[in-house]
Amino acid sequence: MNNTHAKFIVIEGLEGAGKSSAIALVRDFIAQHTGATPVCTREPGGTPLAERIRDLVKVADPSDPLCDEAECLLIYAARAQLVANVIKPALANGQWVLGDRHNLSSLAYQGGGRGLMPLVSSVSEATLKGFKPDLTIYLDIDPVQGLQRAADRGALDRIEQQAVSFFERARNTYLSLAEQDDAIVIVDASQPMAKVHSDIVAVLQQQGW
Amino acid sequence: MNNTHAKFIVIEGLEGAGKSSAIALVRDFIAQHTGATPVCTREPGGTPLAERIRDLVKVADPSDPLCDEAECLLIYAARAQLVANVIKPALANGQWVLGDRHNLSSLAYQGGGRGLMPLVSSVSEATLKGFKPDLTIYLDIDPVQGLQRAADRGALDRIEQQAVSFFERARNTYLSLAEQDDAIVIVDASQPMAKVHSDIVAVLQQQGW
Repeated sequence: MNNTHAKFIVIEGLEGAGKSSAIALVRDFIAQHTGATPVCTREPGGTPLAERIRDLVKVADPSDPLCDEAECLLIYAARAQLVANVIKPALANGQWVLGDRHNLSSLAYQGGGRGLMPLVSSVSEATLKGFKPDLTIYLDIDPVQGLQRAADRGALDRIEQQAVSFFERARNTYLSLAEQDDAIVIVDASQPMAKVHSDIVAVLQQQGW
Repeated sequence: MNNTHAKFIVIEGLEGAGKSSAIALVRDFIAQHTGATPVCTREPGGTPLAERIRDLVKVADPSDPLCDEAECLLIYAARAQLVANVIKPALANGQWVLGDRHNLSSLAYQGGGRGLMPLVSSVSEATLKGFKPDLTIYLDIDPVQGLQRAADRGALDRIEQQAVSFFERARNTYLSLAEQDDAIVIVDASQPMAKVHSDIVAVLQQQGW
């Protein structure tokens, strides 16, 4: 690998798919191969302002329920801020970036899950103008299995509390978009963790960076 | 006028154009003619969540400067929330709504002023889906004169601190959009206040409500 061509890698997946341990694995892999720890981001969030936006999205206010369109626009506002102030400067500086979620989450959750694909598509294009990760690893899991894992680890947030059908639509969108884009690789996250991790390492090694 | 066909009226204009006193005038006019005080909104803002978004837009954070795209998307998130949770329910309930700014501000400031018209247009269409005020009164003023008035009344916020050229582009966009839409009426706000107010009343009386 070569620091002069820093890459932007994203880990995607439903709640409970095992994103956190995959991120730790990929972070270590990048550090070993480039000699430097990547800049790690999470979405929505990752800048002081984007983290304040994240709070608005994650915490339900019964007196003023967040409408689906506002949810979508807040997430893209946070993303615009993160891309402008963190991701692009890091890449320009030769630093690799490792993202816990990025645009594919919005296409899956707000586009597929909420049924807002026209809004998501137009905002996505107008905001990102073609900017996208070099590689996205999508950890595929059945929503029922994933939500059980997420519930085991603690209280569910506003989005994690959606119906299973919401996550099924999101999963179908993930799978359908992955089929159309060579830069999105599907890893079967229902396998034992050791196998999931060896699959992820194999994906990274195949990139020829 | 007739409560069963409640109207959505918006007052627009640059800083210092005299929006506040115009709003008081129109509010009293509506109350007198319908027998009920209208629901008054301000943008960005007008719901608990939208007011928190307003704070993000209005207050500069030097450690994480708000990028233009995020500013635009935050404003539309606040607008989506306000339309869904306040404006549409009020109109459906037969209550008139009087807005201190609405979508035309975004077209003028973010579209014209910031040069983001493609983003603003696509987000506007995808979010509002044709929803618009029955009448917009645009108080037209030269930016230099308006900003002087705004500065006289206190400290300027993050947006009010933009260069005069920003407000000139916004004004040109206001004027150009008003020319293309019969539901936007221009009032010359450089006139003495009594004349501005009699012009506004004349506009309202011409509506035939």
